[in-house]
Amino acid sequence: MTSLAIDYHGGGTLIPRSYEPVEPGPGEVRIAVAYTGICGTDLKIAHGAMDQRVSSPWPIGHEMSGTIDSLGAGVEGWQVGDKVTVMPLNWCDSCPACAAGHQHVCHNLDFVGIDSPGSLQQHWSVPVRLLVRVPDDLPLLTAAFAEPTAVAVHDVRRGQVVPSDHVVVIGGGPIGLLISLVANHLGADVLLSEVSAFRRKVADQLGIQTVDPAAYDLPATVTGWTAGKGADVAFEVSGSRAGVTALTDVLSVRGRGVVVAIHTEPAPFDLMAMFWKELDVSGARVYQRRDFDEAIGLLTAGVIPADSLVTDVVALAETEKAIERLGSGEDIVKLIIDSQ
Amino acid sequence: MTSLAIDYHGGGTLIPRSYEPVEPGPGEVRIAVAYTGICGTDLKIAHGAMDQRVSSPWPIGHEMSGTIDSLGAGVEGWQVGDKVTVMPLNWCDSCPACAAGHQHVCHNLDFVGIDSPGSLQQHWSVPVRLLVRVPDDLPLLTAAFAEPTAVAVHDVRRGQVVPSDHVVVIGGGPIGLLISLVANHLGADVLLSEVSAFRRKVADQLGIQTVDPAAYDLPATVTGWTAGKGADVAFEVSGSRAGVTALTDVLSVRGRGVVVAIHTEPAPFDLMAMFWKELDVSGARVYQRRDFDEAIGLLTAGVIPADSLVTDVVALAETEKAIERLGSGEDIVKLIIDSQ
Repeated sequence: MTSLAIDYHGGGTLIPRSYEPVEPGPGEVRIAVAYTGICGTDLKIAHGAMDQRVSSPWPIGHEMSGTIDSLGAGVEGWQVGDKVTVMPLNWCDSCPACAAGHQHVCHNLDFVGIDSPGSLQQHWSVPVRLLVRVPDDLPLLTAAFAEPTAVAVHDVRRGQVVPSDHVVVIGGGPIGLLISLVANHLGADVLLSEVSAFRRKVADQLGIQTVDPAAYDLPATVTGWTAGKGADVAFEVSGSRAGVTALTDVLSVRGRGVVVAIHTEPAPFDLMAMFWKELDVSGARVYQRRDFDEAIGLLTAGVIPADSLVTDVVALAETEKAIERLGSGEDIVKLIIDSQ
Repeated sequence: MTSLAIDYHGGGTLIPRSYEPVEPGPGEVRIAVAYTGICGTDLKIAHGAMDQRVSSPWPIGHEMSGTIDSLGAGVEGWQVGDKVTVMPLNWCDSCPACAAGHQHVCHNLDFVGIDSPGSLQQHWSVPVRLLVRVPDDLPLLTAAFAEPTAVAVHDVRRGQVVPSDHVVVIGGGPIGLLISLVANHLGADVLLSEVSAFRRKVADQLGIQTVDPAAYDLPATVTGWTAGKGADVAFEVSGSRAGVTALTDVLSVRGRGVVVAIHTEPAPFDLMAMFWKELDVSGARVYQRRDFDEAIGLLTAGVIPADSLVTDVVALAETEKAIERLGSGEDIVKLIIDSQ
């Protein structure tokens, strides 16, 4: 059997490669990959912005689903044919963060699909402890949303969202949309701030209330919406400096902010608002196992209408062209690569 | 009887005034003021930096102690001669912050001694609900530390310090020293970062471990001190940009930062560290009643050796000169004004 992989070679270059799949090693399973979603980080990698981390030619990709097609020695509790997804975190179990129970932000974390080979290939072997079971009645296309949905579940947990909270989500890309859906499901009242008319339209179709911060003064809008109180929780998912300013501006006294987006450079931050309103601001990164389990539950229950977020499904061989389109600013919500 | 007050007139001008003390109004008591500590905010006001808030000529001052010398109509539970201090917060009881139980950061907070007349006078009438009882065995000079100690207790509470935490305090002025003492008392291991040799010497004498961040790389020092983990809690009390950078640099994964100092301008803030280490950063402002009560307890028990922090006690009539000295960078820890 000959399989296809799309290797990232650094410098923004993706090169297809044919290979004979090897058998999984001890404690590993080999997955026949079905679908891989492309996220903002994949796009950054493909644009050459993370070449220091993706240091050898290998496939990227970590939002995936598939079916087990071979079991390595010593693997128990799994069968060939089982539907699975992967929680792509491999931790060291010995650093101070692991010792404190924060394995997902391990000092030596191997983010599988970035720091080691990922799922943009047809046959992929992973350590069995990374597997997450996909229920029989959850379609594999939907299951590819487990990872970004787990991100959103984790973000909402870090924001300690409770029913009746007024929640502002700043930035309406896939993660912002998923955070909005998860917070809505918890009973919060959600307002999504997004400058793109296309993304606001997608949000509207998902039943998410939106505001265009270029057309309306966002803090004033939130003040009116909350009868003068301000937002109980706000998520910075835009990655923009305007989003950072909005985060502290929209929050109520003792409001809880969550920094979800990656800001590679220090950004001007309103520490006076932090002090004056006694804000609590938390960073949120990836997810824990319970977030992944909850994500699978939300997808299976249909709470997250993942299929509505899929605007494009393309074949693995077309990955490079598809990523070019994604980077060009085309109206794409979620691009999925089909490895079948 | 003729009393003396020191009125702040805006533009950095302090003018003494003689007055006949009036009787306290209904629900008020009049206090014969004993001592008033001068804090950084008082200094800012006296330098003309807060003229938009201190809008009429009146005395500033809010770190005080004294004795009740007259009771207004309807006051119960207090006697002439009772030793008291004042929790100088007057809230509206009707804004969203008050409704949510956060009266101390009320949207319409009257900070007594800034937004309304304070204690740099001999006879001062205040609403009875602001009174805090001073035990008979707590000297009035020590009781003047109740307010800054309550700040420190509140800051430590916001930082959720627990025994065995490694705590870094950035900035060794009076509040930084008090935070260090309160955190030490809780069983935390405290390291105070302070550039001034004089302040480090004061800290040494109080048994607080110090480091000079100009001579030693602070993050590297903390990494070594914590066996690679980083600080569990860090307090930014310096008001400097270097302090803001240090706050996120020294913290461990899931470390808790507290913004205590006032940063009037947005400062570059490392949101990548917030994300990468999943930090929790909180603003801390003033105190709640339980912080004040705990402060009185710590002072009475001798946990906070407040007297060791008093470097200068001067007569009320000498206030202007004393504040000039404080602003000149002289080696002063806590300057106390004696109104007796």
